[in-house]
Amino acid sequence: MTDLPKSIDIHEEGPREGFQIEPGPISSADKIALIEALAETGLQHIQVCSFVNPKLVPRWADADAVAGGFRPKDGVHYTGLWFNGRGLERALAHRDRLSLYGSITTTASEAFTQKNLNRSHAENMVAQRKQAALHLSHGIEIRRISVQAAFGCNYQGDITPADVIRVLTDGFAIADEAGVKPAIISLADTMGWATPIRVERLLGEVRSRWPEQRLSLHLHDTRGLAVANAHAGLRMGVNRFDSTVGGLGGCPFAGQKGAAGNICTEELVLLCEEMGIATGVDLDALIEVGRMAERIVGHQLPSELIRAGSLDAFRRKAA
Amino acid sequence: MTDLPKSIDIHEEGPREGFQIEPGPISSADKIALIEALAETGLQHIQVCSFVNPKLVPRWADADAVAGGFRPKDGVHYTGLWFNGRGLERALAHRDRLSLYGSITTTASEAFTQKNLNRSHAENMVAQRKQAALHLSHGIEIRRISVQAAFGCNYQGDITPADVIRVLTDGFAIADEAGVKPAIISLADTMGWATPIRVERLLGEVRSRWPEQRLSLHLHDTRGLAVANAHAGLRMGVNRFDSTVGGLGGCPFAGQKGAAGNICTEELVLLCEEMGIATGVDLDALIEVGRMAERIVGHQLPSELIRAGSLDAFRRKAA
Repeated sequence: MTDLPKSIDIHEEGPREGFQIEPGPISSADKIALIEALAETGLQHIQVCSFVNPKLVPRWADADAVAGGFRPKDGVHYTGLWFNGRGLERALAHRDRLSLYGSITTTASEAFTQKNLNRSHAENMVAQRKQAALHLSHGIEIRRISVQAAFGCNYQGDITPADVIRVLTDGFAIADEAGVKPAIISLADTMGWATPIRVERLLGEVRSRWPEQRLSLHLHDTRGLAVANAHAGLRMGVNRFDSTVGGLGGCPFAGQKGAAGNICTEELVLLCEEMGIATGVDLDALIEVGRMAERIVGHQLPSELIRAGSLDAFRRKAA
Repeated sequence: MTDLPKSIDIHEEGPREGFQIEPGPISSADKIALIEALAETGLQHIQVCSFVNPKLVPRWADADAVAGGFRPKDGVHYTGLWFNGRGLERALAHRDRLSLYGSITTTASEAFTQKNLNRSHAENMVAQRKQAALHLSHGIEIRRISVQAAFGCNYQGDITPADVIRVLTDGFAIADEAGVKPAIISLADTMGWATPIRVERLLGEVRSRWPEQRLSLHLHDTRGLAVANAHAGLRMGVNRFDSTVGGLGGCPFAGQKGAAGNICTEELVLLCEEMGIATGVDLDALIEVGRMAERIVGHQLPSELIRAGSLDAFRRKAA
């Protein structure tokens, strides 16, 4: 247990991840209301929107209205997501309100790279090299190297730590060429293949290879193991997590196969705070925001905690 | 990781726990169909019904029809639940089909003992002493000492390992008096207060005090941490778990507070099998039974895995 961090940074992605998949139209006002409520909980990093092609993701056709519409709170970092030059241009227009960071994004599964990006890994590395140059030309810091499908892939099967280290090495080569040193390695369990033992093995190998980089996990609860995987990550010293309030991001249609939500922010906060790991988040306030998210999307969200309530709420009643 | 067991025993409680809480009437035929399907998955312990007062639990008014109606499979142990002499009498009528085991049941929270049983802990110990004598008079082995609310209580707040050890000591005193040595200590997170660190601490202390007893966990997913708690338990050498297929046992009304389901059997199996811990269960077959349970209850169950499918299913496709 010696590697448990004293505190973690949570990067809340509920607005961005959640609203892109919801079937019902969600008003810009509701999106903004959720972002502003999240900022009041103590969360310091909130991803507010995705600057994507509205033909591909119609739910984010209002990205500019949302990015320009919320009332920023001091001390909170708001971020956006983009995948290409056109998206970056849109993000740059909100530079006064958004914290813009670049990343070099790799995928550990060749099959998924083809399926998702219609490119080979080698082709994607060319694209990432261009993207890195573009970021730097705009004075945007390249902070992260991230790996999609780092634990397994529905199209390729198991992914080994060697596969991940190979694509990370390619990512770091791009960073070296560009003269930058990304501080963070982010490992994404895109399709829900992680298990605690696989988290331990992969993080152990990555940490040995790049001991100076900070490790971050992006977990999905596709097969119900996300919280166990987060716990395994904490034990390996991970102190940065992406998550979504309420477990937003899941598929709202009962019985339909597909992406389950991300790890639930409030369940991650409960886990950490009860283990003495500071998150800076007021859990009861966050649970209220989870309930608000459920009202906005109009259907039940995966979070169990927003129904049960925090332990502290019961402790106060029992006292 | 040295304490990870090589294999675990799973006690499937889906039929009993699940059907007592469901709002819709579930036919005896459906209950029996689920029990028979579970027996085909490799599960070796299935709790099939509850011999309770039908005025209190109308959904188990057909306990005798179910206990007497399913087709037993060789090598599978079917059990029932009872709380008093009247229930035991009913269970005894099915002795040819059910494996009857007694337990001494304590509660670590005085407030919950009052609320749930309308007795003090001391009064409950008197009742448990009588119950133990009754079991032995019928030749029923007393196999377990169990502790309800072992990790915390909505009415009393935190429960310490010392609280648990105190009631366990009282339970073992009853066993000693009766001249029996229960082989299993079962710790129940009745109201969802367990966290991985609390599991480690409690199991560590209980194991030091009773090193010869086997440890068992009964976990609820009330606040989303059940799988993380199971993982912590495995690391402490726990090799016996209660669970329910699909996560049956939860409250089916969206947004209503109350008991979430038990830990999901198929997610527990996934966790174990992917860590090299044998369960004897065919996960793909079990996932099909989870989907069947969902059809029977007529609403979505908490299990993510019955929507996503096993990793092996994707491995076969990818190969």
